[in-house]
Amino acid sequence: MRPIGVFDSGIGGLTVARAVADRMTGSPLLYFGDTAHLPYGEKSPVLIRHYASRISHHLRDQGCRAIVVACNSASSNALDAVRDAVGPDIPVVDVVQPVVAHLADRWPGGRIGVIGTRATIESGLYQRLMAAKGLEAMARATPLLASAIEEGFHQGAVSEALLEAYLGDGGFDDVDALVLGCTHYPLIADQIARHLPPHVHVVNSPDLVAEAVASLFPEEVKADAAAEHRFLVSDWTDSFALGARRFFGESIRLEASDLWRS
Amino acid sequence: MRPIGVFDSGIGGLTVARAVADRMTGSPLLYFGDTAHLPYGEKSPVLIRHYASRISHHLRDQGCRAIVVACNSASSNALDAVRDAVGPDIPVVDVVQPVVAHLADRWPGGRIGVIGTRATIESGLYQRLMAAKGLEAMARATPLLASAIEEGFHQGAVSEALLEAYLGDGGFDDVDALVLGCTHYPLIADQIARHLPPHVHVVNSPDLVAEAVASLFPEEVKADAAAEHRFLVSDWTDSFALGARRFFGESIRLEASDLWRS
Repeated sequence: MRPIGVFDSGIGGLTVARAVADRMTGSPLLYFGDTAHLPYGEKSPVLIRHYASRISHHLRDQGCRAIVVACNSASSNALDAVRDAVGPDIPVVDVVQPVVAHLADRWPGGRIGVIGTRATIESGLYQRLMAAKGLEAMARATPLLASAIEEGFHQGAVSEALLEAYLGDGGFDDVDALVLGCTHYPLIADQIARHLPPHVHVVNSPDLVAEAVASLFPEEVKADAAAEHRFLVSDWTDSFALGARRFFGESIRLEASDLWRS
Repeated sequence: MRPIGVFDSGIGGLTVARAVADRMTGSPLLYFGDTAHLPYGEKSPVLIRHYASRISHHLRDQGCRAIVVACNSASSNALDAVRDAVGPDIPVVDVVQPVVAHLADRWPGGRIGVIGTRATIESGLYQRLMAAKGLEAMARATPLLASAIEEGFHQGAVSEALLEAYLGDGGFDDVDALVLGCTHYPLIADQIARHLPPHVHVVNSPDLVAEAVASLFPEEVKADAAAEHRFLVSDWTDSFALGARRFFGESIRLEASDLWRS
């Protein structure tokens, strides 16, 4: 079976890969983490498009039957470049549109908060898509949060101080829901929820994205045995290898790709 | 006059450029911040060498008369690659060796702490150079600190929580001095000092590096007028443009370089 391609700037997108693997049992994944260039969240739209396009070409050339852009910064800034790269025959799923569709269903006319990297928030994509569906958006960049989680600072004083700095002004107190607009944030969803009033729902994107991927292949039946996945990274370090377990939920073997040196 | 080339993974190396500009009044600088690939601190030695080599070639081709590797991660992992790239006629100054020479003079046989990125500390360069000069090294990676400073979290609860996490175990309580082994750290030198006993000296590298650069050109007299510097970045964003002032101490104009797309 041809694999489903999933890519991210690093290993955070493994939270999305995990959800897709759980939903599409039996389908192999080909994951590409662009650790040579991470994080995308501080980089310019032009550069993010350049990286995303090259990776998408590569995944297409590896025979992928669909592409999941498992990175909010890339979904917000480079979706057109990804579609151009893979052509009309390979469906592309991003991590923004399935979430906004869900929000509009669940909280019609509601007020929705979104936090993410600077590249994600400054692109304005969440804000535009929500406005088009009659939702009111309250968006804020929380740039250091992903790095803090990647470094293992969760559930402690550092992430508490960060969440206080980013959410402590009560800016999200009157929203119906808060979207975790970065693949790293689900790891501290509970801690984020504690910084919000009880009525605010925290929206977990990976499951919604996995549902969107599954809807592309309605005929596919669940397999009994788990498929063999492959996980490529453009720069291999011990630290990424160790961190991968935290995001995928089990030990996996990261392979070094030489995409950027070929 | 031919410029002095200075490079870093981003804008943190501007603290070193500032010191060189102050010490070498009248000499133009050509600064290159590799913002397309920052941070280097989490990347592999192979990749850091690849980036440093390409940038050094570029600075040589632009006519630089000396190269300053204003990045601890690159100095620790890529000095040989830089020297190979520029050849024997262009002197190369890094940010590690001048500091270790100073330590051996000032605290002979002393016990010295060093904090830096993962790439810097894991390379073991500080530790090897100190051991060769009879110093005892106590080295520790403090990976999130540079990003926190770059994001403007200094002198507040977030950097306090981080310093407590990194220094709060008293691991550096019995050192004579602590080296700030990352170009970002001088911005919070006072705050770091408050997390250490009063007898621990905090070593500020940029001035020592500037002195090493000046020693290459002993004939050069101080000019009355400041020289014209140029500041290139491989990825240009508003955020970098704004942050540059914090590190260089005055407003400067960052120019976009297309080195990685040529």
